[in-house]
Amino acid sequence: MRGAATLCRVSLERQTPAGSSEGRRDPVRIARFSIDGNVAFGAVEGDRPDELVLDIIKGIPFAEYELSGTKVPLSKVRLLPPVLPNKVVAFGRNYADHAKELGNEVPDAPFAFFKPSTSVIGPGDDIQYPAFSEDLHHEAELAVVIGRMCREVPRERVKDVIFGYTCANDITARDVQKREKQWARAKGFDTSCPLGPWVETELDASDLTIQCTVNGAQRQLGRTSEMINSIEDLIVNITEAMTLLPGDVILTGTPAGVGPLAVGDEVAVTIEGIGTLTNKVVKRG
Amino acid sequence: MRGAATLCRVSLERQTPAGSSEGRRDPVRIARFSIDGNVAFGAVEGDRPDELVLDIIKGIPFAEYELSGTKVPLSKVRLLPPVLPNKVVAFGRNYADHAKELGNEVPDAPFAFFKPSTSVIGPGDDIQYPAFSEDLHHEAELAVVIGRMCREVPRERVKDVIFGYTCANDITARDVQKREKQWARAKGFDTSCPLGPWVETELDASDLTIQCTVNGAQRQLGRTSEMINSIEDLIVNITEAMTLLPGDVILTGTPAGVGPLAVGDEVAVTIEGIGTLTNKVVKRG
Repeated sequence: MRGAATLCRVSLERQTPAGSSEGRRDPVRIARFSIDGNVAFGAVEGDRPDELVLDIIKGIPFAEYELSGTKVPLSKVRLLPPVLPNKVVAFGRNYADHAKELGNEVPDAPFAFFKPSTSVIGPGDDIQYPAFSEDLHHEAELAVVIGRMCREVPRERVKDVIFGYTCANDITARDVQKREKQWARAKGFDTSCPLGPWVETELDASDLTIQCTVNGAQRQLGRTSEMINSIEDLIVNITEAMTLLPGDVILTGTPAGVGPLAVGDEVAVTIEGIGTLTNKVVKRG
Repeated sequence: MRGAATLCRVSLERQTPAGSSEGRRDPVRIARFSIDGNVAFGAVEGDRPDELVLDIIKGIPFAEYELSGTKVPLSKVRLLPPVLPNKVVAFGRNYADHAKELGNEVPDAPFAFFKPSTSVIGPGDDIQYPAFSEDLHHEAELAVVIGRMCREVPRERVKDVIFGYTCANDITARDVQKREKQWARAKGFDTSCPLGPWVETELDASDLTIQCTVNGAQRQLGRTSEMINSIEDLIVNITEAMTLLPGDVILTGTPAGVGPLAVGDEVAVTIEGIGTLTNKVVKRG
């Protein structure tokens, strides 16, 4: 069974032009990109990395939309964060091995914090090492992208509010996090929320490998099946309290292996079935 | 000396039609409102509460704008949250007496948390008592409204990025706050951030009385001069880490006297020189 985005799939089935050559094939990866100063969403098509193309979407993918049939090579565009979230809700200590590696108890219940929209960057964008920290860490995470406005979502309806999945890096100023009781600065600074490379809308996310490399060397490795609280748990938990909007993002916690980043490092988050999100660390100039 | 919004004042001086009867009088209170299904900003004019009118603003007040000269009585409109913040950054334990009343240490340095845009309501809107808490508290706070995009603001430039001030109530699920290490749910649930009634753009906010009443009985009383970290400190602190956008809101902490709210209560935050923000507590239906 695929735990995927019912809302979106319905829209796609209805809107894909029946006569087009792509009529029988669901586009499943939705990217946001800029080309020649214009910003658009597109469906990623193709199998070989060097031959991927984007079929430009008319409208926005959270509502009904059509594929234009106008295609541009992925190599010609700049990928942007695949969504512009109103809010990013992140859950702490949702993998037992990670909680333990920082000397923390596994919490009795999920707890959430926010990363602001101003922290979001896209694939290939630079992570700016902020002046107020000397201990920046990577945290590879599966990101859930919300597809429709929702509140108090029953467990059995969670799949209906999910648009898809992407990779995230919950960049953390570990020293600041230890000093400050709440984590707005430690986890909310500009560039601290890389997202991408695109949203995979057809995916069973319950047991995927998730890994993080720094300069090609593996640092984190886990499986989403190791989450303490499932995606369903997390969305039930947060929507007990607040409304989620289309494009909002839920970060689901990081597996063990977090560690420091230095200026010049290239950090990559790869999640099975989605792709790789790569960002370089630069000194904030 | 008035610690007010240079950016806005300049715009107003430039844009107020020289020939209008209001040409020599700066409108200082900017409200957002709806009337007959339309939403607009307006400058609040008049002195007697029952005779206030709104001069409808063409454009948005954060950029250059003009007063239309078209006026509607305040009594005929529904006031909305005076801004739609991208993010609300709130500082904890910024009044010593409040930190002590909850048995907490006064922190060595400011620490911040976020309230999401989905938590914001306006004057007269209902605070919905959420099902996941049994101990909702009021926290009266001075809210600073940001007027321009800014990052790494030097102390001496802080006044230039402030659009004005309004009243806020940092509604808190105290029981949830005690249980959950980060406060996204405890302080970020829908309706937990009443703001209003309008933004006062000409005000020295350094020593104002701030009070909270519940059903007319005084619960909180303090002065903004009792803040541990000044408004300048807070904006320097947060913009070390992140970009603030026009309409973003900084909550500056609450004085002593916080306490429980019950369904049916009417809670009012009054700040000298601004006005009163009143909201009723209802059961979430």
